[in-house]
Amino acid sequence: MVSASYASQGVRSIDEHDRIFLRLASNARLPARGLPESAVARCAHELSVMDSNNFLENVGVGEREGRVFSALVRSRVYHMTHGIGRSGDVVAEQPKACGSSAMARLANACAKDAMRIAGMASIGYTFVMPLATGMTLTMVLMAMRASWGNAKERDVVIWCRLDQKTCVKAATCAGLELVVVEPVISGDELITDVHAIEREIARVGERLVCVVTSTSCFAPRACDDVVAVAKLCEKTNTGHVINNAYGVQSRVICKKISKAWTIGRVDAVVQSTDKNFLVPVGGAVVCCGKRKEDVAQAVATSYPGRASASASLDLFITMLSMGEDNWVRLLDQREDAYDYMASELAKVAAEEGERMLCTPGNPISMAMTLSCAKKIGAPPTMFGSMLFSRCVSGTRVVAPGETKTVGGITFQGFGASHSAYPETYFTAAAALGVTRADIDRFTTVLRKTFKDFKKKARTPTAASEEAESAERDESVNNLIAALVDIDVKI
Amino acid sequence: MVSASYASQGVRSIDEHDRIFLRLASNARLPARGLPESAVARCAHELSVMDSNNFLENVGVGEREGRVFSALVRSRVYHMTHGIGRSGDVVAEQPKACGSSAMARLANACAKDAMRIAGMASIGYTFVMPLATGMTLTMVLMAMRASWGNAKERDVVIWCRLDQKTCVKAATCAGLELVVVEPVISGDELITDVHAIEREIARVGERLVCVVTSTSCFAPRACDDVVAVAKLCEKTNTGHVINNAYGVQSRVICKKISKAWTIGRVDAVVQSTDKNFLVPVGGAVVCCGKRKEDVAQAVATSYPGRASASASLDLFITMLSMGEDNWVRLLDQREDAYDYMASELAKVAAEEGERMLCTPGNPISMAMTLSCAKKIGAPPTMFGSMLFSRCVSGTRVVAPGETKTVGGITFQGFGASHSAYPETYFTAAAALGVTRADIDRFTTVLRKTFKDFKKKARTPTAASEEAESAERDESVNNLIAALVDIDVKI
Amino acid sequence: MVSASYASQGVRSIDEHDRIFLRLASNARLPARGLPESAVARCAHELSVMDSNNFLENVGVGEREGRVFSALVRSRVYHMTHGIGRSGDVVAEQPKACGSSAMARLANACAKDAMRIAGMASIGYTFVMPLATGMTLTMVLMAMRASWGNAKERDVVIWCRLDQKTCVKAATCAGLELVVVEPVISGDELITDVHAIEREIARVGERLVCVVTSTSCFAPRACDDVVAVAKLCEKTNTGHVINNAYGVQSRVICKKISKAWTIGRVDAVVQSTDKNFLVPVGGAVVCCGKRKEDVAQAVATSYPGRASASASLDLFITMLSMGEDNWVRLLDQREDAYDYMASELAKVAAEEGERMLCTPGNPISMAMTLSCAKKIGAPPTMFGSMLFSRCVSGTRVVAPGETKTVGGITFQGFGASHSAYPETYFTAAAALGVTRADIDRFTTVLRKTFKDFKKKARTPTAASEEAESAERDESVNNLIAALVDIDVKI
Amino acid sequence: MVSASYASQGVRSIDEHDRIFLRLASNARLPARGLPESAVARCAHELSVMDSNNFLENVGVGEREGRVFSALVRSRVYHMTHGIGRSGDVVAEQPKACGSSAMARLANACAKDAMRIAGMASIGYTFVMPLATGMTLTMVLMAMRASWGNAKERDVVIWCRLDQKTCVKAATCAGLELVVVEPVISGDELITDVHAIEREIARVGERLVCVVTSTSCFAPRACDDVVAVAKLCEKTNTGHVINNAYGVQSRVICKKISKAWTIGRVDAVVQSTDKNFLVPVGGAVVCCGKRKEDVAQAVATSYPGRASASASLDLFITMLSMGEDNWVRLLDQREDAYDYMASELAKVAAEEGERMLCTPGNPISMAMTLSCAKKIGAPPTMFGSMLFSRCVSGTRVVAPGETKTVGGITFQGFGASHSAYPETYFTAAAALGVTRADIDRFTTVLRKTFKDFKKKARTPTAASEEAESAERDESVNNLIAALVDIDVKI
Repeated sequence: MVSASYASQGVRSIDEHDRIFLRLASNARLPARGLPESAVARCAHELSVMDSNNFLENVGVGEREGRVFSALVRSRVYHMTHGIGRSGDVVAEQPKACGSSAMARLANACAKDAMRIAGMASIGYTFVMPLATGMTLTMVLMAMRASWGNAKERDVVIWCRLDQKTCVKAATCAGLELVVVEPVISGDELITDVHAIEREIARVGERLVCVVTSTSCFAPRACDDVVAVAKLCEKTNTGHVINNAYGVQSRVICKKISKAWTIGRVDAVVQSTDKNFLVPVGGAVVCCGKRKEDVAQAVATSYPGRASASASLDLFITMLSMGEDNWVRLLDQREDAYDYMASELAKVAAEEGERMLCTPGNPISMAMTLSCAKKIGAPPTMFGSMLFSRCVSGTRVVAPGETKTVGGITFQGFGASHSAYPETYFTAAAALGVTRADIDRFTTVLRKTFKDFKKKARTPTAASEEAESAERDESVNNLIAALVDIDVKI
Repeated sequence: MVSASYASQGVRSIDEHDRIFLRLASNARLPARGLPESAVARCAHELSVMDSNNFLENVGVGEREGRVFSALVRSRVYHMTHGIGRSGDVVAEQPKACGSSAMARLANACAKDAMRIAGMASIGYTFVMPLATGMTLTMVLMAMRASWGNAKERDVVIWCRLDQKTCVKAATCAGLELVVVEPVISGDELITDVHAIEREIARVGERLVCVVTSTSCFAPRACDDVVAVAKLCEKTNTGHVINNAYGVQSRVICKKISKAWTIGRVDAVVQSTDKNFLVPVGGAVVCCGKRKEDVAQAVATSYPGRASASASLDLFITMLSMGEDNWVRLLDQREDAYDYMASELAKVAAEEGERMLCTPGNPISMAMTLSCAKKIGAPPTMFGSMLFSRCVSGTRVVAPGETKTVGGITFQGFGASHSAYPETYFTAAAALGVTRADIDRFTTVLRKTFKDFKKKARTPTAASEEAESAERDESVNNLIAALVDIDVKI
Repeated sequence: MVSASYASQGVRSIDEHDRIFLRLASNARLPARGLPESAVARCAHELSVMDSNNFLENVGVGEREGRVFSALVRSRVYHMTHGIGRSGDVVAEQPKACGSSAMARLANACAKDAMRIAGMASIGYTFVMPLATGMTLTMVLMAMRASWGNAKERDVVIWCRLDQKTCVKAATCAGLELVVVEPVISGDELITDVHAIEREIARVGERLVCVVTSTSCFAPRACDDVVAVAKLCEKTNTGHVINNAYGVQSRVICKKISKAWTIGRVDAVVQSTDKNFLVPVGGAVVCCGKRKEDVAQAVATSYPGRASASASLDLFITMLSMGEDNWVRLLDQREDAYDYMASELAKVAAEEGERMLCTPGNPISMAMTLSCAKKIGAPPTMFGSMLFSRCVSGTRVVAPGETKTVGGITFQGFGASHSAYPETYFTAAAALGVTRADIDRFTTVLRKTFKDFKKKARTPTAASEEAESAERDESVNNLIAALVDIDVKI
Repeated sequence: MVSASYASQGVRSIDEHDRIFLRLASNARLPARGLPESAVARCAHELSVMDSNNFLENVGVGEREGRVFSALVRSRVYHMTHGIGRSGDVVAEQPKACGSSAMARLANACAKDAMRIAGMASIGYTFVMPLATGMTLTMVLMAMRASWGNAKERDVVIWCRLDQKTCVKAATCAGLELVVVEPVISGDELITDVHAIEREIARVGERLVCVVTSTSCFAPRACDDVVAVAKLCEKTNTGHVINNAYGVQSRVICKKISKAWTIGRVDAVVQSTDKNFLVPVGGAVVCCGKRKEDVAQAVATSYPGRASASASLDLFITMLSMGEDNWVRLLDQREDAYDYMASELAKVAAEEGERMLCTPGNPISMAMTLSCAKKIGAPPTMFGSMLFSRCVSGTRVVAPGETKTVGGITFQGFGASHSAYPETYFTAAAALGVTRADIDRFTTVLRKTFKDFKKKARTPTAASEEAESAERDESVNNLIAALVDIDVKI
């Protein structure tokens, strides 16, 4: 017999778990302490039971009833199969999925709270888009355009140059033209050319949809001066969208954004869920300040149809598991990691006769010169490949002089975010989740790579790599061949 | 000691499982027989090991390294955290995620093969969009527009009326105007007005982006005459996009589409993954015939940035689990269910003094008149609510005379896809996965609901429902209140 | 906003899911219909929340606090980490684990109900042992022995011969001696020699612990005549334990057992959970009739300490998922499969010049002669190996004349359960879960194997197998070698 | 197209993952660094593919084919459904399950290595029993008994008193008599009475199976002097079994055991998997020194039949996830936690007018006097209940004078492991996995509880608790009632 006193304590625990959900719904806050998996999983199961496909007596005779063939798939989505949103409003309640709808809303609330904690004061309308950053930026630009009375005539975006293809594609996909404003070199750093923006605003006139600034980027480009641009946009009645891709993880950037929307004009800020909140790729958060919420709201309601619940579900699970305590700890650790990486890389630079570029305006990424490449006559990108094949991912080698055409626009010095940046360098980032141990392993590999790079330049070695592939088992070669070949047939 | 003969048989099994992958990659076909979960899960794990975040020795110092905070999230995505696609091409290989990239490609290949098996002959370029149908349609319309030399001037879409908000939003979100062509009444059925389309093509002229037809819809609207429209578009050099939302499940519809792209012009066909392949909401398949593949290809390469791997992963798991044998069986069972539902509903109709609308052009949805509503003076929608509260989901009650404005366009008789359809009716669908047992439970509830509906109309009963809510526990009311209230705070 | 009507329907669903648990607890019955995974998983999560290791505020300072290192392990046990039972009573409540305790009890209740449904009328005390059948039998024999006043002197078990090592080991592990009573040949069948048992009871006298009969076994041995033995034991005040390893799946056997404990003496019946209820190996159910429950109860309370919750959890999940409807369907299908297998094998036998042994007393297993082996001078076991290497598992080839010593006892004609059975034969079983498709594949392989067997006997082929192993990749050979070698080091 | 260089790096990763398994099999060592879940899960899937139930072409026509009804169950056991062991040997290979067999062996190898790392030098035969500690001890005692020529006459065990019911039941379940040797009081501590053991060995003579000592226990009982007893047993040709329930986590205890089996006689050592390796309850490890391995081996081969793979699987997953690095870190942290707990509790004791018992011979558990209970005239156990209801689990309050009969033996002063221990006290343990934060929360609650305990003793409060239950929702009371009631029906 289960004794009444133990049973009563067990039932009290159920009750406390029920209260997690009630507290979340009524406070719209992250839990103070991260919850154990058992509590998080229970919460997800509880919500899924409220979706009609999980009603015990449901008979579905519509064209979409949330039926899922595979048990593996059902279990991986916690039986929430109806997605989120409804005909033309991604934040609208999904009638067949009350639980999924509530879950998506709680994910929005938690994301907003996490951003507030990270330093975004006076944050207004905030929600999770079931799209990665680039596509979300496209949606924001389309909503921004539609917000103007003369939407049809508005087809230009002024964009502070940042050499990532996605940013360019985000605009061209929306059918917009880009006017590129190049940053100016200040010491080692590339900073926003506010005057040039002002000139272009005047020049483009009534065709202008908005200015797009970026906060998080590869050094030596700095975070854009979003405060100055916001003031400029306020003054000139110009739209202003901030691409804050992975900036939530930096309190400095969050503060700048808050200041921008408090004393100037910001229509919408877009950030990735994966880089800022450590979830799989696939979502973005759109937010804005309390002073101006119409464009952010329009993005939500312009979305055609339903969407995958995955981005919201990943974020929901993560926010509950993380809690405010782990979130704050992660933010602290990242700042510590930045300082540690900077000082450790400076040591390597000194040893190798290189130097760290001085980029105080970029709180996440840093860059070291790679001047040895020129001296020894080796292609700088070889240095990057060598790091990659030694299992270091994420560095980026940039040499002057590359020209590339993206979305119809030709960029001189592509990669550097500037047409004539003088240095050859490589970058590394102290991003959320990186540890001191990671940095130690990185610098170890880096030292070895410098050595091999300098040596390799003196000896022809292509032969050795061919040999390597010849040595492989046939089965391995078959697999590689199969992988390389997949899409020929489709 | 493990004996060599058993070990050798065990290793042979590993080998056979490895061959699943090789076979998939080289044949680009569904497995002949659905695979057991153990084999499917192993395949997913094998692929994820090829993603850089799962390399045993990886050190990530980039801004995006696929780090995931929650073990629950990591496991639900099979550790594939990098998403799919890369800067501006959703079918491009993701350099940090060779496994995810291969997985996405195999999902494309399997989807294409499944559609071929379902009856789409001469199918050309096919891929999975990580977006639900509505948003995918938006992307297709934008790519369609961009395909014209004078893209800027092209801002009109001719659309065969279908009363779902998503369709309208898909166009307005893309910044396009809709020209609505209403179907004509033929017997009970609503069929495509090809002549009206021809007139509108001529009228709109150079501003036209394309004609949008739909194949799957609520009865009494029939599948559009996509063959006639395709011939017309070929003749007039007009774009043609088919919204085939849940039409893959019908061999009749697949055959019509094949014929359309074989003898006429079809630029792209869009279909939902959830309704056709029994996965959670969140993906769509874009395909086309072999004769004209440029627009479908342009959709893939215009996508800005990376995307969630969820839609591809769900489809990949499902296609491997399903195999050709279960897929064919499901298609067969659906056809059988259609016939069974039609005959069972006809019996109920006869008993209740109603009749089935005669809609031979719609192979999935069917409709029964609800003429009793008028006779007894009850609001027809009450019938739908009663079914819903009896756990029947998916029926849709339509009464003449409703007017609604969607995306700026006012529709008379909204819901009926026609401004003056004479009947009041409700619909039900024999969609993929519905069983004879479901249909039996449906008709049982239906008979009871007819009885209660006719009775209820004679007695005021609002009181009983209030009482019901009063009776609920306080805890239940708290939960409902919390749910209703969530988004007030965010 | 989540609307109140949808929220209220969602909450109603939660309520209905809560009622599953209440209904289970108060009815102690299988659900009438199998529950969907979402409901079953929720039930498990709900129970686990009642275990102290999942209390949100728990601080553990004992020596056992249910801490689990691996998230993979935690999730696979649904966070129920405390096991079941407590110091010396495996059915006692585990104070730190109210949820696990309730779960284990519900598993007991469901197992009992399932056995009642399968035909065990007047079933009494029933519970799940966290041990497979053999070890459970050992525990039962020890409790049986301890139930006698002169337990120390009692050290003999009379056992109706059944040639499986586990049965012998079950007794010897308990420190008991076996008196083997061989069955008698009746036609093709081996049936219980009740007279011999009676003689041995008299002979062994006060040293006797009990008689052990078996119901499920390989043909041509029949189900023991448990009714006659039960009457005999009643009359002679002798203990009687029935090894019903996989007999629950046969209604005929269940009826015999019911009759035995209704009109005679049965102290305990032991059955495997895996073979009868389609769960992984690891549990057994001990039951008895209502007339005599003391021994079964003593088994539960003699268990020293806690135990793994796995067997109970697997059974709990399975019983809820299965429900009465699927359980009955499985029992029906098995009976159908038996008839189908018998008739299909008879066809093969006729073709090959063999015959089916006539064994009406065995409702699960059947046997076909393999007289060709002698004729062609091939070792009969080669036929079994050939089937195994063709991926047919579970057949068993028996030839006269083998002698084997197990647990110190020497058996003539080991394998046949008789010292002088005249035929060479192989067996196959129509066990729970086997399908007509399985049987078709089996007979196809069987025909081919007969052909190859007859051919092979004429040609020396060892060479081909060596060649096969030489052909394998080196990596494969490494793996096999590693597997074979594992335990040398430990 | 997947590029060859990325594909080749992906395939290299597969290869490295394959090598995990090969390295495990050939080194029989824990991985140096804990493996990520993705690698561990892949390893489990890879092994399961080698089980016959997962062969793609398998047809099962035996009585046990590893069929599992529920997809939830299949996935939670990684599709390894055949269990481990075979007829009468739990470490024997399971013919139908080569993967499970290899997995079980690797678990054995890892457990042995972990124990070596923890300090067990010269460790010999080691394997995982699929049974919790108590039942494993029963099996060891039975094998120990059987190892004597005159096994039948041997039916006595000499046991150094340790007040846990399981220890007593372990012997009585095996049909053995216990001769209890009480420890002697030395300062605060209870230590082994080696002389009394020697006397009893002489007295019991030929009926003696073995001496059982215990290493891990509640303070103030110390770890038994296993070295002295081992020497005594060697000298007197007496069996010696060590119950090392949760002693692996203490290097001091491991060293003592090593010394014991190196310079004296130890037949087998039993330890729990859950408490030492942080897995769910359900397994035990049996080991011995290299000098004498026959009894430990006999335990493995006396096991009747197959067994659940759960204990091995949990351990396998955990050992791979943990690696040597985390294992060493956990051992270090536990030692640190012991010191921290001791010093923090000493502070509380000083504040409350109590003192810590001085127990240098117990490296895990510690005790604080509870002399205030007597002074204020409150029942000491109330203190324990108050801690439990404040979510502190694991403390144990012991007061002199309790008498209890277990397994037919009456113990004076039950709980204290001594018939006349003078103090009232409570214990707490610094067990593996406890953190400084746990200890801080514990001392906070403890201080509060002391305060309330002293207050409560002065005021009658039963009333308040009744009120509490009256306040609860009816639904809660229903649930409690249902839980309490479950087994009445079964």
